[in-house]
Amino acid sequence: MQGLAASSRIVLVVFLLSMAGAAAADGRKRVVSSSSDEPCTKMTLYLHDILYNGVNNSQNATAAPATRPTALGTTYFTNNTFFGMMVVFNDLVTEGKELPVGNEKPAALAQGFYFYDKKETYAAWFSFSLVFNSAAHKGTLNVMGADPMDEDTRDFTIVGGTDDFFMARGIVTIRTDLVQGSFYFRLQMDIKLYECYV
Amino acid sequence: MQGLAASSRIVLVVFLLSMAGAAAADGRKRVVSSSSDEPCTKMTLYLHDILYNGVNNSQNATAAPATRPTALGTTYFTNNTFFGMMVVFNDLVTEGKELPVGNEKPAALAQGFYFYDKKETYAAWFSFSLVFNSAAHKGTLNVMGADPMDEDTRDFTIVGGTDDFFMARGIVTIRTDLVQGSFYFRLQMDIKLYECYV
Amino acid sequence: MQGLAASSRIVLVVFLLSMAGAAAADGRKRVVSSSSDEPCTKMTLYLHDILYNGVNNSQNATAAPATRPTALGTTYFTNNTFFGMMVVFNDLVTEGKELPVGNEKPAALAQGFYFYDKKETYAAWFSFSLVFNSAAHKGTLNVMGADPMDEDTRDFTIVGGTDDFFMARGIVTIRTDLVQGSFYFRLQMDIKLYECYV
Repeated sequence: MQGLAASSRIVLVVFLLSMAGAAAADGRKRVVSSSSDEPCTKMTLYLHDILYNGVNNSQNATAAPATRPTALGTTYFTNNTFFGMMVVFNDLVTEGKELPVGNEKPAALAQGFYFYDKKETYAAWFSFSLVFNSAAHKGTLNVMGADPMDEDTRDFTIVGGTDDFFMARGIVTIRTDLVQGSFYFRLQMDIKLYECYV
Repeated sequence: MQGLAASSRIVLVVFLLSMAGAAAADGRKRVVSSSSDEPCTKMTLYLHDILYNGVNNSQNATAAPATRPTALGTTYFTNNTFFGMMVVFNDLVTEGKELPVGNEKPAALAQGFYFYDKKETYAAWFSFSLVFNSAAHKGTLNVMGADPMDEDTRDFTIVGGTDDFFMARGIVTIRTDLVQGSFYFRLQMDIKLYECYV
Repeated sequence: MQGLAASSRIVLVVFLLSMAGAAAADGRKRVVSSSSDEPCTKMTLYLHDILYNGVNNSQNATAAPATRPTALGTTYFTNNTFFGMMVVFNDLVTEGKELPVGNEKPAALAQGFYFYDKKETYAAWFSFSLVFNSAAHKGTLNVMGADPMDEDTRDFTIVGGTDDFFMARGIVTIRTDLVQGSFYFRLQMDIKLYECYV
């Protein structure tokens, strides 16, 4: 009897807790993860940055430098590290590693900018929105963070989201997956949300 | 009796919950909204972007391009979509649709930048602070997000705030309310906070 | 008896609450501060911005203008207020007021950008990452906000963090501590986190 009473009390408390912790978007409930190993939402996507070469790739290019490297980058180190060069992008984001073919839709677009910010070597800083408009997801995730390119993995912050990702927060762990010459790179993005509405 | 005991337990639990959930700024309590339809704070404001025309509006202008459109915008599509053009702004924000007249103070200033990021059409990306310094509100709200201009409404993320908006989070839904030529646009901003300190 | 039963109920509730409120990063627990006067983490650091003078300080310089001031800044007010000038930086951050000497490591690096955004006087807007890689701290804090330079203190928002600062949120209160000519300034940063994982 006592055991039963106690467990019904727990049910009551848990019910009230979920009310207090909850903030429903269209009936959805707020979830805060109980461990950094257990995000409430998780997905891996690939970002393709195709830089305009100024010559013949305007059809495919999704990014272009909006500013030039500053003299600080070239003066300090003759091997130009692009210090201060800011690139605006609207990159394709896919579930697999390949670019979409034919009428295939990308999983998302990554719209934002990065700039190089280290005179001695290559390092960058990013801020962008992942814009989803597919059968799987609608809405955006807003992201920012430092990209010390010589480390294997780097963590960006997911500062918020909209629609399917209403009020989300989390981490994007990025990895440089492929670099082809000066005009293409692919980043693996492991997206982990720790505050979700599900 | 049993009913009474149960309800006093609920009071206790709710009291403890509000302690746990609370984080007071100057005695204020943290509130997390229980529904996306019921923000804890809500207001509608209008942002006026008056772009410097390079000729004769330096008195009124509140925004100016800091970078030029990249060749990607003009090469791909002769109808220049300003890809990569970044505009810095310090725009007037008002409660009504009209610009302040005489000594009238604006409700806030919007200080930040946007850039165009689509080669095929007009789309932008914003990051800015709403700076309030009026009888009604003091403090800032920090905002970022993608602006797909061809959609009726677009959602930016409110990533944080200060003073009256200490640690706020939420959404700004924007609508293009008016465009006059190339040098003026007005955005309606429906500001909804889902994490507040009240 | 009744008193004892009640207190055991409180223990139960508090235990469940801490589960609900917790989100452990590597076993760490989520803490939300109960007062704006009592951040869960607090530290004071100094940011040193050494602007490249274009002549002879490329060894020491940690910042350089990526864009020029717009005509709006110079036309409105002949005393150029640098409207639209964007500076990219990778600044040294120290615990004391002095720059590191010899092999001394900085407490952190501040990587990001600011731009001037007021035509009448000096005001700026910042977004950057504090990158820690020392015995004391590893990880990043991501920051953004308006900098009305003529006020004694200004508050930026800490929108997120990684590693030691996993999912952090808070406020950085800055103060201009020293300005030397046009090419050096030092900011005092009082960093206060109100959402921590400890």
